[in-house]
Amino acid sequence: MRLVSFELSDGSQGYGVLEGDTIRAAGAALSAKYADLRAVLAADAVPEMAVADGTVYALADVTLRSPIPNPDKIICIGLNYMSHIKETGREKPKHPSIFTRYPSSVLGHDVDLIRPKASPDFDYEGELAVIIGTEGRHISAANAWDHIAGYSVFNDGSIRDYQIHTSQFWPGKSFDDTGSMGPALVTRDEVPDIEAQSLKTRLNGQEVQSTTIDDLAISIPEIIAYCSTVTKLLPGDIIATGTPGGVGRFREPRLYMKPGDVCEVEISGVGLLRNGIRDES
Amino acid sequence: MRLVSFELSDGSQGYGVLEGDTIRAAGAALSAKYADLRAVLAADAVPEMAVADGTVYALADVTLRSPIPNPDKIICIGLNYMSHIKETGREKPKHPSIFTRYPSSVLGHDVDLIRPKASPDFDYEGELAVIIGTEGRHISAANAWDHIAGYSVFNDGSIRDYQIHTSQFWPGKSFDDTGSMGPALVTRDEVPDIEAQSLKTRLNGQEVQSTTIDDLAISIPEIIAYCSTVTKLLPGDIIATGTPGGVGRFREPRLYMKPGDVCEVEISGVGLLRNGIRDES
Repeated sequence: MRLVSFELSDGSQGYGVLEGDTIRAAGAALSAKYADLRAVLAADAVPEMAVADGTVYALADVTLRSPIPNPDKIICIGLNYMSHIKETGREKPKHPSIFTRYPSSVLGHDVDLIRPKASPDFDYEGELAVIIGTEGRHISAANAWDHIAGYSVFNDGSIRDYQIHTSQFWPGKSFDDTGSMGPALVTRDEVPDIEAQSLKTRLNGQEVQSTTIDDLAISIPEIIAYCSTVTKLLPGDIIATGTPGGVGRFREPRLYMKPGDVCEVEISGVGLLRNGIRDES
Repeated sequence: MRLVSFELSDGSQGYGVLEGDTIRAAGAALSAKYADLRAVLAADAVPEMAVADGTVYALADVTLRSPIPNPDKIICIGLNYMSHIKETGREKPKHPSIFTRYPSSVLGHDVDLIRPKASPDFDYEGELAVIIGTEGRHISAANAWDHIAGYSVFNDGSIRDYQIHTSQFWPGKSFDDTGSMGPALVTRDEVPDIEAQSLKTRLNGQEVQSTTIDDLAISIPEIIAYCSTVTKLLPGDIIATGTPGGVGRFREPRLYMKPGDVCEVEISGVGLLRNGIRDES
């Protein structure tokens, strides 16, 4: 299934199943039991979404939010594709490089990302997001797949000068409304061979990043094992697994996103995440 | 006022006012309006706590939690006292070095911190925590004090080997149950001269850190201005402002915390935060 969170023009919010160009909303019975998709995951109730019987909306009539707008954690892996590691002049890492984003920095599909007043150094980073379904601490790599609810497409939009003000990346990674995830949370059963999928990022139609997921330096199970050594992973937690080579900062000349641009990140079998860019008002 | 969050032996949770060795709980009317202290801050309702009329508990009969157990953000500043900057061999920074902790890593006063199975390199970091009262984005340094609800004492307990697995500190800073804050959120009016206060850390009674708050390399208003450039600060957000020199990692010989140890962090006018240490079971 492809699960989405959305907002209607009257400001009310809901969740449902994406089917082509329509959304079948959760309906009264499901909504009464589960406030949002995170609650659906926490109750291990994804199968119930198959019988969601709410209003059917045209995709064009709603605003998509991040599929999980309110996760407990958004854990981001830096420098995790061999192609990106090479372009930054680094060696293959022994451990995942980890920073966090706050949910206020992550929008949904087809809404504008905001270039902040503070800086024009606004870069894209196309990534695969893994969404946790079953909580766990000290998860072994062998068991890690069983803790995954599904996948989504992630744009880890980065304000590069703030990212390198010090050794710690957080300021460049948590500007409000600079990243995105979506369109949907695609359940794991729909993409059994996730590592065989391809990821491409396009800026105004020009391909700027291209990889297969199996170029990850530290694999998805290894990432989950490491993170769960540190802290208990909860249903709805998001792990953005890192970006491949081709980011704007390391291009010659540099290629940053500006108002009017359109950035697309596409992962085969998972979806196409598209966002325009506009300036902070 | 000194505001606390606590848990009773039956597992129920509450909040109230700390008065000497007793806690005056919020009472039914306040509790019905505000689920927790974060909600009290969000409603700008701290003055109502003066008339809290709930049960009076002996401090010894409750378990203190972090005063704000469920903040939207815990933003931590690294390398922010000149004494600590010097011991790590660095220069005075132009920008704050920022990483985050998750709330699951922060306990309250007088409960044991957990040395993880993954590593014995468990270090203390005594810090002043600033708690946001009034939300804001793009807060100027001149206006920053008006956004502060109050202060608390923070132990930014750190797993040093995980902290330096890569350039990013997060893994060493977010192990579950390795940090603490408390005993209370002390409202700003109680400590008008916060920068004149002293901070001391003791491990098993031996003083290991000592500073005055005015040795901060980047001041409290500058930190708030910088963070609010990145993201909107919300009521209950916690900013741990950095630790002074004297951490265990840079002692000769190294001095890490082990089961049975007692770590105390004390800030004049704010309080004494004490935690035992035990091993992860």
